Amino acid sequence: MRFELTKEFFETLQDAISTENVAWINENVCELHEADIAAIVDELEDDEASYLYRLLDEESQSDVLVELDEDVRERLLKTFSTKEIAGQLENLDSDDAADLVAELPPDQVEEVIGLIEDPEAAEEIVDLLNYAEDTAGGMMQKEFMKVHLEWPVKRCVVELRKQAEEVEKVFTIYVVDDQEKLVGFLSLKRLLFARPDTAIADLYQNKNMISVKTGDDDEDVAKTMDKYDLVSVPVVDLQGKLVGRITIDDVVDVIKDEADKDFQMASGISEKVESSSSVFRMSRARMPWLMIGLLGGILGAQVISGFEYGISEVPALAFFIPLITAMGGNVGVQSSAIVVQSLARGNAHLGSTMKKLKKEALVAALNGLMLSVTIYAITLIFGTPILGLVVSLSLFTVIMFAAIFGTLIPLVLDKYKIDPALATGPFITTLNDVLGLFIYLTIGMLLFNI
Amino acid sequence: MRFELTKEFFETLQDAISTENVAWINENVCELHEADIAAIVDELEDDEASYLYRLLDEESQSDVLVELDEDVRERLLKTFSTKEIAGQLENLDSDDAADLVAELPPDQVEEVIGLIEDPEAAEEIVDLLNYAEDTAGGMMQKEFMKVHLEWPVKRCVVELRKQAEEVEKVFTIYVVDDQEKLVGFLSLKRLLFARPDTAIADLYQNKNMISVKTGDDDEDVAKTMDKYDLVSVPVVDLQGKLVGRITIDDVVDVIKDEADKDFQMASGISEKVESSSSVFRMSRARMPWLMIGLLGGILGAQVISGFEYGISEVPALAFFIPLITAMGGNVGVQSSAIVVQSLARGNAHLGSTMKKLKKEALVAALNGLMLSVTIYAITLIFGTPILGLVVSLSLFTVIMFAAIFGTLIPLVLDKYKIDPALATGPFITTLNDVLGLFIYLTIGMLLFNI
Repeated sequence: MRFELTKEFFETLQDAISTENVAWINENVCELHEADIAAIVDELEDDEASYLYRLLDEESQSDVLVELDEDVRERLLKTFSTKEIAGQLENLDSDDAADLVAELPPDQVEEVIGLIEDPEAAEEIVDLLNYAEDTAGGMMQKEFMKVHLEWPVKRCVVELRKQAEEVEKVFTIYVVDDQEKLVGFLSLKRLLFARPDTAIADLYQNKNMISVKTGDDDEDVAKTMDKYDLVSVPVVDLQGKLVGRITIDDVVDVIKDEADKDFQMASGISEKVESSSSVFRMSRARMPWLMIGLLGGILGAQVISGFEYGISEVPALAFFIPLITAMGGNVGVQSSAIVVQSLARGNAHLGSTMKKLKKEALVAALNGLMLSVTIYAITLIFGTPILGLVVSLSLFTVIMFAAIFGTLIPLVLDKYKIDPALATGPFITTLNDVLGLFIYLTIGMLLFNI
Repeated sequence: MRFELTKEFFETLQDAISTENVAWINENVCELHEADIAAIVDELEDDEASYLYRLLDEESQSDVLVELDEDVRERLLKTFSTKEIAGQLENLDSDDAADLVAELPPDQVEEVIGLIEDPEAAEEIVDLLNYAEDTAGGMMQKEFMKVHLEWPVKRCVVELRKQAEEVEKVFTIYVVDDQEKLVGFLSLKRLLFARPDTAIADLYQNKNMISVKTGDDDEDVAKTMDKYDLVSVPVVDLQGKLVGRITIDDVVDVIKDEADKDFQMASGISEKVESSSSVFRMSRARMPWLMIGLLGGILGAQVISGFEYGISEVPALAFFIPLITAMGGNVGVQSSAIVVQSLARGNAHLGSTMKKLKKEALVAALNGLMLSVTIYAITLIFGTPILGLVVSLSLFTVIMFAAIFGTLIPLVLDKYKIDPALATGPFITTLNDVLGLFIYLTIGMLLFNI
């Protein structure tokens, strides 16, 4: 029932396309789920993709279009006339249509919208384009089912039947008053089993009615839907009027994007990239952190050069420089990761900072002790007892400092409304490098009595 | 409409609990959404939590119980009699009930199940306990709506009305044949607008029918539901019989857990922890990576000690050790992060390894060039021209190697079915440290003619 794209299938398909074997394609590709067809089109060369796409029926075409990778879709649409693009838009849900229009070259937008035949569809798209992409307004769709408070069930069924043609997935029916203000909701289940003459006012629910505002941030929408286990949420304007709804599939994308962004940020990539992004974009996304790393390295060089005399006296001091910096970095990143996550989940507001710090300090002390004893034992094998003492003593100190900074910095950033995910990765590593070098070399100078 | 837990509200509530001001609590807490009540209970002291919980009505109690943090729930349940726990279970969906039973102390499980009054509910829980937690069977619930292929719409409505009492959220009605095998589905919308005497066989759909098997991995279920934009998916056994369904809210949890795990792994934490985990568990989760880091540091010390003579001749060589190791680590982590993500998304199977490598090498060459020129200019200020040449030349080489390893290692791990997320974080950093030191010091010895 589920399709797996194999290398063999892919090569057979490429053959079929080059020999224009329409029968094979119809039987083996066109019958697949649109998400699977899109995954295939993503992998094809541009002219193959365009050929295959035109073999699909109209309904499938739009569904596949939505599922494509952004850059594949962009290239595919370039092979379309403006009229054809307008035709595709009419088959899409309003939110997908608006997203697609937003991706078009600016000079094409007006023309495409002018060519949409259904005036209502055109109006919906124009309306949705007003909202910023990362807000509830930018995520919502105009397709939803609503009934009026004063209607009886019988009339609802008639009205909903009309609305149902436009709405692909129905989860909840929203109930509005005579000013179009959202007052409650009604599950399809409840409607299905109600008597025809019951009034909606006697049937609808308003306890636990959760809605979002058009201007709400997309991540807040995702948190709200996740927290309240919602599969769809109504969107209201500033007057409380119902203007759209957001469904869970869009929210899953936001959650995944956010996780990707955090992961990349922790890995020192400062702007969202994909493996398909251009070389220049990838380079640009990585440079900020590398520059910070370079700066940290230069500061580190400055610190060590301050101890040049000590190193020329005891060159063995240089041996453990990478160990000290690496361990400081690792511990710092570990501590900050936990704090960043609990901040992202939003469950760190009431827990006190002191409690967190105390716990991280305990963990650091425990790990620091074990690691220091280990390194002391090992250095005894190939160094002097004093060197062992210097390394293990500084290692312990560096671990303690790294844990404390790793915990505090994200909390401070969060307090000043800066994304705490910035704190993990190169930033903490760099700070701990410089600090660790200073601690290590100072202890070295003291114990070696230089 | 949405509740925000403020410090002020929390303190007022604590006062109300200590003065047993039931009226205030009823008005201000019991009317909230269960998810909000759970967030409050999570923050309370144990005796306060227990007091507040018992003021809730039975329905709210179970809903709150499901939403609590695992450790808070565990402590709360300890204040319950076995009989009371059994009572709570009957109000829960079967999947939540089974999860809760699985959390109980093993010696209590049998007794609790024996005390459940509804034999069907007990049977469902016992059945669900058979499946491993991280499989489709372990995620599914027994509450779903199903109709038989040969029924007319009229009978369906009657049967579904009975089933609807048990099923909180209805998304799709599943259609089975006379052997209980899943053959298709029917949307509630379609049923609502059908004539009473239409046969289900003429109404149901089976194109794009996606299902999962009880033994499927939870992450695969999440990927499937995400790919096909499903809000619920039916679960079948090996014979194709319909045995349960999985809803999107459980899948969102899997996606978030997976993202958390990846983020922690990239940060060098090897077992899933939360900020509420114990000090020992946190320490244990971090030790493996720290030990690898320590080992790397010792290897690094070995490498440098091989160049002891060179460093005693030109101590300035030691200055840039942290710069070289840090930059190698940063570049390696950046490259691997992109590969790990595209592997996790499952869209890296057909793209060729060589194409990826070439691109990463281009990005690395571009960044390496810019950084090397920068560092050459800077070292001229406070070092000799030869030192500048050594540092910039090695920096470029190290960046190239780090990018290549960062790309290749996760791909190789993935090929051997090892989680490629292991490759980001300390593992790559450590490897690049050792390699970078060797390259840097070798180039230094050569150019300084030592």
